[in-house]
Amino acid sequence: MADKDLKALFVHQLKDTYFAENAILKALPKMAEAARSDELRGAFGVHLEETKGQVRRLDDIFRMLKQQPEGVECKAIQGIIEEGEEIMTEFEGGEAMDAGLISAAQAVEHYEITRYGTLLAWAKQLQLDEAVKLLQETLIEEENTDEILSELAEDSINPQAA
Amino acid sequence: MADKDLKALFVHQLKDTYFAENAILKALPKMAEAARSDELRGAFGVHLEETKGQVRRLDDIFRMLKQQPEGVECKAIQGIIEEGEEIMTEFEGGEAMDAGLISAAQAVEHYEITRYGTLLAWAKQLQLDEAVKLLQETLIEEENTDEILSELAEDSINPQAA
Repeated sequence: MADKDLKALFVHQLKDTYFAENAILKALPKMAEAARSDELRGAFGVHLEETKGQVRRLDDIFRMLKQQPEGVECKAIQGIIEEGEEIMTEFEGGEAMDAGLISAAQAVEHYEITRYGTLLAWAKQLQLDEAVKLLQETLIEEENTDEILSELAEDSINPQAA
Repeated sequence: MADKDLKALFVHQLKDTYFAENAILKALPKMAEAARSDELRGAFGVHLEETKGQVRRLDDIFRMLKQQPEGVECKAIQGIIEEGEEIMTEFEGGEAMDAGLISAAQAVEHYEITRYGTLLAWAKQLQLDEAVKLLQETLIEEENTDEILSELAEDSINPQAA
């Protein structure tokens, strides 16, 4: 059953997350472009750079496991991004556009938080100490980004949209 | 632009979440059936009952807004649930099955946490005080469920899967 053990599951989820991060790399510039608020556009720009670093960390973990970095189709992130695109189309030019963009971005963040949280728990169980370190760094970045977006929404974007 | 303001966005997301909760109501019994651990099966059962109450709260919010409760297709939850089904098929009978089920369930929980978090922030902004109360109750339940699943994974499911 070695092909169905926790190590196999870890590699499977690593590939899912690799696919997701690369999809996010493509989606973020479009979201930044659609943002009306300079501050929100800036936050998306910062997170784009962070995401590039997160992909490099995944590359490193694949290497530690002596595997080629590769993705498996992640229908979850595709659905989450598609919903964001629908909001961008439906609320284009409206007052609530940026509030909708933030909600889409936070759905992306929470997907990453759950995946990295799980990968971290599994890496600890598998005693992949180097991977634990890298996954922890990324998880903290994702949680910070989610918090920054919440603050931005509550402090300025939502009041402007109401 | 009243059709594109925050109130419109709130109603749109309410419908998305209503669709998602009803999809989760169908997915949870399958996940419970697939679980090998009695404890995990029990946790899914408890959350199924909670989910029914969460749908009733959404019904109440629709009524407050003098709207018919209805869903709009939520591709995000469809993708998240589909990924869970893939894990169930791929790891069926394997040692890591329950660990995979928990990761799928936590992806669902995090989707709900982000959606309810956003709905709550928007309800506060729109001064929908009754809705704020109901959304807060559900958000706390979702966060608790996520925590219970993390503990279950770390304390018993992951060590058994490794």
